[in-house]
Amino acid sequence: MPLLKPLAIIAGVGPGTGASLAARFGRTYTVALLARTSGAAEQILASIGGDGIAVATDVTDPVSIAAAFGRIREAYADRPLAAAVYNVASRVKKPFLELSLDEFESGWATGGRGPFLFSQHALPLLLTAGASDTAGAYTPSLIFTGATASVKANAESAAFATQKWAQRALAQSLAKEFGPRGVHVAHVIVDGPIDTPRIREMFKGVDEKGLIDPDAIADAYWWLHTQDKRALTWEVDLRTGVEKW
Amino acid sequence: MPLLKPLAIIAGVGPGTGASLAARFGRTYTVALLARTSGAAEQILASIGGDGIAVATDVTDPVSIAAAFGRIREAYADRPLAAAVYNVASRVKKPFLELSLDEFESGWATGGRGPFLFSQHALPLLLTAGASDTAGAYTPSLIFTGATASVKANAESAAFATQKWAQRALAQSLAKEFGPRGVHVAHVIVDGPIDTPRIREMFKGVDEKGLIDPDAIADAYWWLHTQDKRALTWEVDLRTGVEKW
Amino acid sequence: MPLLKPLAIIAGVGPGTGASLAARFGRTYTVALLARTSGAAEQILASIGGDGIAVATDVTDPVSIAAAFGRIREAYADRPLAAAVYNVASRVKKPFLELSLDEFESGWATGGRGPFLFSQHALPLLLTAGASDTAGAYTPSLIFTGATASVKANAESAAFATQKWAQRALAQSLAKEFGPRGVHVAHVIVDGPIDTPRIREMFKGVDEKGLIDPDAIADAYWWLHTQDKRALTWEVDLRTGVEKW
Amino acid sequence: MPLLKPLAIIAGVGPGTGASLAARFGRTYTVALLARTSGAAEQILASIGGDGIAVATDVTDPVSIAAAFGRIREAYADRPLAAAVYNVASRVKKPFLELSLDEFESGWATGGRGPFLFSQHALPLLLTAGASDTAGAYTPSLIFTGATASVKANAESAAFATQKWAQRALAQSLAKEFGPRGVHVAHVIVDGPIDTPRIREMFKGVDEKGLIDPDAIADAYWWLHTQDKRALTWEVDLRTGVEKW
Repeated sequence: MPLLKPLAIIAGVGPGTGASLAARFGRTYTVALLARTSGAAEQILASIGGDGIAVATDVTDPVSIAAAFGRIREAYADRPLAAAVYNVASRVKKPFLELSLDEFESGWATGGRGPFLFSQHALPLLLTAGASDTAGAYTPSLIFTGATASVKANAESAAFATQKWAQRALAQSLAKEFGPRGVHVAHVIVDGPIDTPRIREMFKGVDEKGLIDPDAIADAYWWLHTQDKRALTWEVDLRTGVEKW
Repeated sequence: MPLLKPLAIIAGVGPGTGASLAARFGRTYTVALLARTSGAAEQILASIGGDGIAVATDVTDPVSIAAAFGRIREAYADRPLAAAVYNVASRVKKPFLELSLDEFESGWATGGRGPFLFSQHALPLLLTAGASDTAGAYTPSLIFTGATASVKANAESAAFATQKWAQRALAQSLAKEFGPRGVHVAHVIVDGPIDTPRIREMFKGVDEKGLIDPDAIADAYWWLHTQDKRALTWEVDLRTGVEKW
Repeated sequence: MPLLKPLAIIAGVGPGTGASLAARFGRTYTVALLARTSGAAEQILASIGGDGIAVATDVTDPVSIAAAFGRIREAYADRPLAAAVYNVASRVKKPFLELSLDEFESGWATGGRGPFLFSQHALPLLLTAGASDTAGAYTPSLIFTGATASVKANAESAAFATQKWAQRALAQSLAKEFGPRGVHVAHVIVDGPIDTPRIREMFKGVDEKGLIDPDAIADAYWWLHTQDKRALTWEVDLRTGVEKW
Repeated sequence: MPLLKPLAIIAGVGPGTGASLAARFGRTYTVALLARTSGAAEQILASIGGDGIAVATDVTDPVSIAAAFGRIREAYADRPLAAAVYNVASRVKKPFLELSLDEFESGWATGGRGPFLFSQHALPLLLTAGASDTAGAYTPSLIFTGATASVKANAESAAFATQKWAQRALAQSLAKEFGPRGVHVAHVIVDGPIDTPRIREMFKGVDEKGLIDPDAIADAYWWLHTQDKRALTWEVDLRTGVEKW
């Protein structure tokens, strides 16, 4: 391990996958947690023991995300960036002709502009970490959270599907461009409902066997991050054993 | 055939596929040709005999596209809309870290916002045409032009691939939502360079066997438009016989 | 058109798609119809006017298929082969652990060995036709019938899905190998139940809007066959307008 | 852990992935190694310390594979089967018209019949293990080795691609049928050349960065095997970081 504890940046931290990702990467790295409001991120940071910072960030806003990365670099100058995870999405499900342009473009904001901005800030740091061999034992990684809608566009899901297909295209393009330069870019298809307080509330009485475990999702990201450079995965799908598709 | 000659609206009319689409659909329908500048569209309109209008339109701008559809409806009130084709794309190929946000989002403008706005204006007219059985012999159709990049995201192609994947997602979502309501939504993957003056200029001395014929592309759109309601195609790929992939 | 009327060979001729293919290609070409029993094929041949031959063939048997092509060449020496269509499948749906090896391999027989044998006999004739420009106006074509199961493998469908995926792989490999040599190889995904007497019997009272029209399927094959060499399609999907996937 | 050390059965054990799989699963389980000749399997068994058996098996032959499973059950009665891996393929690359039927069907033998027979023998044992909770900490797993050709069929690769697509279809069908019954079925796409003595011989002087590490491949199988039941992966792709696709 390097002298300076490496960093992991997680964008999109809330109850569910984000919290689990923070906990999983926080076991090894100092974490920078980005969320819309600092409250949620700080609570999660506290719950995982606290080595890191929580930064209120609107990942769809160039100024806000630049400020967030500025603050991270200020707090942790010289720390190598080991992993960056983009875990943000917005969901609008509506008959197509009732969608406003703003609603439709809220999808692009979280699935196109957001991952673009996040990647443009994270990749130079990941490249540096990869080049200097100070990032620790593993290949510097940039990982995106996808969904069933990343590979299937259903009726009334134009805003959600376009953002998810766009993000998957971005991930694939970056994997090809930055893989040979030493950064592992990967995409995770979370194929089903996740076991969060909100989902349990929505589907009262649901059998938890049918809900994807966020800690297990986070384990998959960690596995991707720790893969050998000579056997890297671009895409992983995750679903429960009871899922019949 | 109905008493009133139906309309076809083609967005993205220039030398190449757009011109061929105008000619092909213009054989049967009155055409409304949308292009950024009215000059190109008017020239094409004249070259195909002239039944229709050319409307200078920025399809990525809500105001401009609303004005274009307003003008079309004003000119051709009560004409059923038989077909609407969205044939607009913007190409930026650059190392990812050199892309500006504006360059990146120019992709979304033509591949996300544009097809959204175009579809929101065209679908109510296509639904009406389908419902009233005045659209002529064929299923009212909404067709999108895709590319190799619609299914494959290469290095340095983030702006192009994200727009193309987003548009394909939109097409698939709309196909499922509007198929059962009587509108045929389809997506065409143009898998290779098209035989246009610009491409011939770029690849001087290229064997034309390796360039996709725009008239043949237009024939495929016409075939999609005239399919039987009980055997509709969502997606077609087109490439030259010499293509080895 | 050449002096000698070209041939089309259709393997898998029965009520439904096969009969419609025979009728569609029989409008222009002399047809050779292959079916397991000569009765069905002869009846269909008679119903479409009769220019051609019906040959009882087991397409999964090398000896039988060689004999069939021998008889065709004997009857129509020097006629160019314009199109060859492979439209054979076998359906077994069973819990996996109840499948016998024979049942499982019956899938391979119709979806692997059959199309292999058929292609090995048809391709040299199609290549010759393409080279001599005697095949008529169109690119010599080899077309395979696929199904929903060609792209999706459901539970209890191992025998059906493996044959359909194998056949699709064969079609894609042949498209790449023989496209540059002047033969158009294509694959059609028939995505839903076809309107045949047997299906109507099975789904009594079904709305015919939900059944794919076999004549319209045949039109799609004809369209593929008549495509311009500079805009060839490898794969087309077909489903009814009411299908929601 | 249960009182009886669980078993892992690996079919297709030779230098490369098979040997690494044997070593990886052998760290935790007693292994049964299947190979065409007992020599290779015994050597690998010895090299990993020796807890297990090597069984000369022709996985494409129903009698041979039944005998192999019979011997395994005899040797290890009552041991739960924790994992079964099918890692067999045959490669023929030839112009299509030069392929004999036997050569073509050798693909089916290893990619269709073989995995069918292996799965029919392994699944009842995996189901039993899953039901009795004696299989150890992890979900009983059935994993198949795929290749680039599992998702892409190139020219002159009909025999290889059909077997690989068929096997992938089988894996997907089984995943859906047996996932809800407690068995994790997964498919691994090994997307590139593997670092084996034979490949190093073939590509003399190749940079090893471009060769997939078989131990890292085996790690991916182990990871699949140890996934949480509430976040199971059907498919994983593996390639080196230098791969540009």
